[in-house]
Amino acid sequence: MESTKHPRVVILGGGFAGLYAVRALDGVPLRVTLFDRRNHHLFQPLLYQVASAALNPSDIATPIRSILRQQRNVSVFLGEATSIDPVGRKVHFRRGSVEPYDYLIIATGATHSYFGHPEWSQWAPGLKTIEDALEIRRRVLLAYESAEREDDPAIRQEFLTFVVIGAGPTGVELAGAFAEIALHAMNRDFRRIDPSQAKIILVEGLPRVLPSYPEDLSDKARLQLEGMNVRIRTSSMVTSVDAGGVTLGEERISARTVVWAAGVQASSLARSLGAPLDKAGRVIVESDLSVPDHPEIFVAGDLASVSNEDGSKVPGVASAAIQEGKHAGRTIRRDLRGQARTPFRYRDKGSLATIGRAAAVADLGRFHLSGWIAWMAWLVIHIFFLIGFRNRVMVVTEWAWAYLTRRRGARLITGESDSELGIAPDPPPEMKPARAAEP
Amino acid sequence: MESTKHPRVVILGGGFAGLYAVRALDGVPLRVTLFDRRNHHLFQPLLYQVASAALNPSDIATPIRSILRQQRNVSVFLGEATSIDPVGRKVHFRRGSVEPYDYLIIATGATHSYFGHPEWSQWAPGLKTIEDALEIRRRVLLAYESAEREDDPAIRQEFLTFVVIGAGPTGVELAGAFAEIALHAMNRDFRRIDPSQAKIILVEGLPRVLPSYPEDLSDKARLQLEGMNVRIRTSSMVTSVDAGGVTLGEERISARTVVWAAGVQASSLARSLGAPLDKAGRVIVESDLSVPDHPEIFVAGDLASVSNEDGSKVPGVASAAIQEGKHAGRTIRRDLRGQARTPFRYRDKGSLATIGRAAAVADLGRFHLSGWIAWMAWLVIHIFFLIGFRNRVMVVTEWAWAYLTRRRGARLITGESDSELGIAPDPPPEMKPARAAEP
Repeated sequence: MESTKHPRVVILGGGFAGLYAVRALDGVPLRVTLFDRRNHHLFQPLLYQVASAALNPSDIATPIRSILRQQRNVSVFLGEATSIDPVGRKVHFRRGSVEPYDYLIIATGATHSYFGHPEWSQWAPGLKTIEDALEIRRRVLLAYESAEREDDPAIRQEFLTFVVIGAGPTGVELAGAFAEIALHAMNRDFRRIDPSQAKIILVEGLPRVLPSYPEDLSDKARLQLEGMNVRIRTSSMVTSVDAGGVTLGEERISARTVVWAAGVQASSLARSLGAPLDKAGRVIVESDLSVPDHPEIFVAGDLASVSNEDGSKVPGVASAAIQEGKHAGRTIRRDLRGQARTPFRYRDKGSLATIGRAAAVADLGRFHLSGWIAWMAWLVIHIFFLIGFRNRVMVVTEWAWAYLTRRRGARLITGESDSELGIAPDPPPEMKPARAAEP
Repeated sequence: MESTKHPRVVILGGGFAGLYAVRALDGVPLRVTLFDRRNHHLFQPLLYQVASAALNPSDIATPIRSILRQQRNVSVFLGEATSIDPVGRKVHFRRGSVEPYDYLIIATGATHSYFGHPEWSQWAPGLKTIEDALEIRRRVLLAYESAEREDDPAIRQEFLTFVVIGAGPTGVELAGAFAEIALHAMNRDFRRIDPSQAKIILVEGLPRVLPSYPEDLSDKARLQLEGMNVRIRTSSMVTSVDAGGVTLGEERISARTVVWAAGVQASSLARSLGAPLDKAGRVIVESDLSVPDHPEIFVAGDLASVSNEDGSKVPGVASAAIQEGKHAGRTIRRDLRGQARTPFRYRDKGSLATIGRAAAVADLGRFHLSGWIAWMAWLVIHIFFLIGFRNRVMVVTEWAWAYLTRRRGARLITGESDSELGIAPDPPPEMKPARAAEP
């Protein structure tokens, strides 16, 4: 397999697209090299559960080399590509480059977009990596600790106000999870504050939550969120984010914890290709997912702008990334066999968003589900797709525990010293009962 | 319970000593306040399993306020005490202080001591906190990644050399865990290196491993470690640690990963007490664990230097901390009832150290066990003492998985960018088979 005569395939990114591309090349006489800047594949649909302290990082992440250990024609390396030279067929890394590829599959995904306000990121972290998730978890848990210590009722309420910007699936899931923390996970843990008095505010620029879903499911999601005391502000554009909160046009929300779930922007790597990009920075690919004028380069996953036959765009969801990665891999196989390339066709397998315990919505084409049955569907599908048997067992155990007790197992504040967050670890001056002091 | 007439007890530190002191005060008409700089109690005896990627942080850590939620006379706050004013009965924190206490229990534990070489800490992290454990895990896993990418066989061997300094229980456990990673956890994951060629070196200044154990058990531990290919250097003093390895007098060991499990030094908080300290900075307490001339201040756990009746010292182990914390709490109860104080008596419940899969030693006084039966005893005792039912379930599940598959579930490299560690994420220049290039 390691013969130097075999064509060399370089794959950038070990997310769903990259991993399924590698798998599609199993058994083919190729030298496949996968690079990722992390050593793990991340099951991103459940990242919000790490952020909300329900799961551990290792429940949703698996070392890439462990996933691919059986596939002998692939080597896995840590490395972050910085640019691509399509003429010389070379990939450049922070230090050094690799020998020219015969095929290249780029699947480095997307990151947050703050709509031209990168300075907001310090006050409103986004959710794309495990580090992001642990940072959000840390801020949320520290906010309750700070509120317990605070005497001024106005400041205490600021600590107990959580704003989620963006009501797509991630934003809805985060808001629902924060509401569950407030309502159930920490009751009786505090002496001076009542966590259920926390305000969760979900902000969306478009007129409804889950704007990419059918309208009836948006309504169902809104009802389920409101039933959990989430306050929803649709048609509200964020005009400023700072240390003290969020401004929505005329309205000011004082909050110490803000999370960004709004914009997405393609990995900057695409720019070096010289290929046409859409306004979010995604590469506009040919029908076979290759880059115009470069049939040896494919783009798959969130980095690709792929059109359906009707002109609509393939959404940036896990199932699309899996299908695109597979298609890129299979196209290389067809090339090697001398077969003609076929166009990529996206098969919409439906969309699911969970809101809380036994609350979810599912768009399965003809069937629109909500509530308990959508939640069961979500549960089964997510467990089924979790990569690795161990992860499935651990996640089911954690979820069973959380379901039975309503408590969250991973409520650890780790990371840098708390003072760096600007929160003083001051003790309260006096142990007077707090509820009497509530406004 | 919150009446301001009740005496006020401040407890610093939510480790074993602090937590058991709080529990001993349950139901007593007191206002108890517990401060810790972390929000979680850590089951430190299993911290090395987080460092070696077998367990998740939340498997061995539980939020303190969650543990104490049923005890209504205690409030829990995040806060790191910086000094104590024993005359004014005040505790000072980084910002602010608390109202005067009637009783104070100090249980802030110990940290690493680099024997006057604090600069070694950057090259040889110690193991006291979750952050320490994740940093060690990160370094160990990155070392294998770097070796896989490296062409120079000498440098590759440096990446595959792991030095543990100090052969007390923590050092022995770490060395055994690193050996298991090398021998079993990652076989077939790599293409160019063979993880089983990793060298694990355990360095100890005294003439034998586990110096605090009976000699026959030291011998058994050495045999079990050597059976796992751990190289042992006893009677070897470390004279220097730097980026490239460790120097032991005349001998130089080139290694990119070094872990410190040697010295322990009491928390610096004790110095502000003005009480007599031993050379490791521990407070030399009275027989009732109070500070000389301050019957209202107790010191418990690793911060206390406690003498047995025969003049020997109580060891710095979890079971001693538990007993001391309980004694301090019960002494306050006796005071309130007008009963005379009793001296603390340490009951040695034996010592256990695990070495690997089905390998351990146990000193149970009259009985010295080793091998499989000692390991079973270790397993049962550690699971039994793990705080929280959920943690027990999760740890048993992880262990069962690891035992059956020999794989480790938490092999995630997280944290800062890899370049900050001085390891370039460079790809290899060519994909030639590696083993042919081995020296």
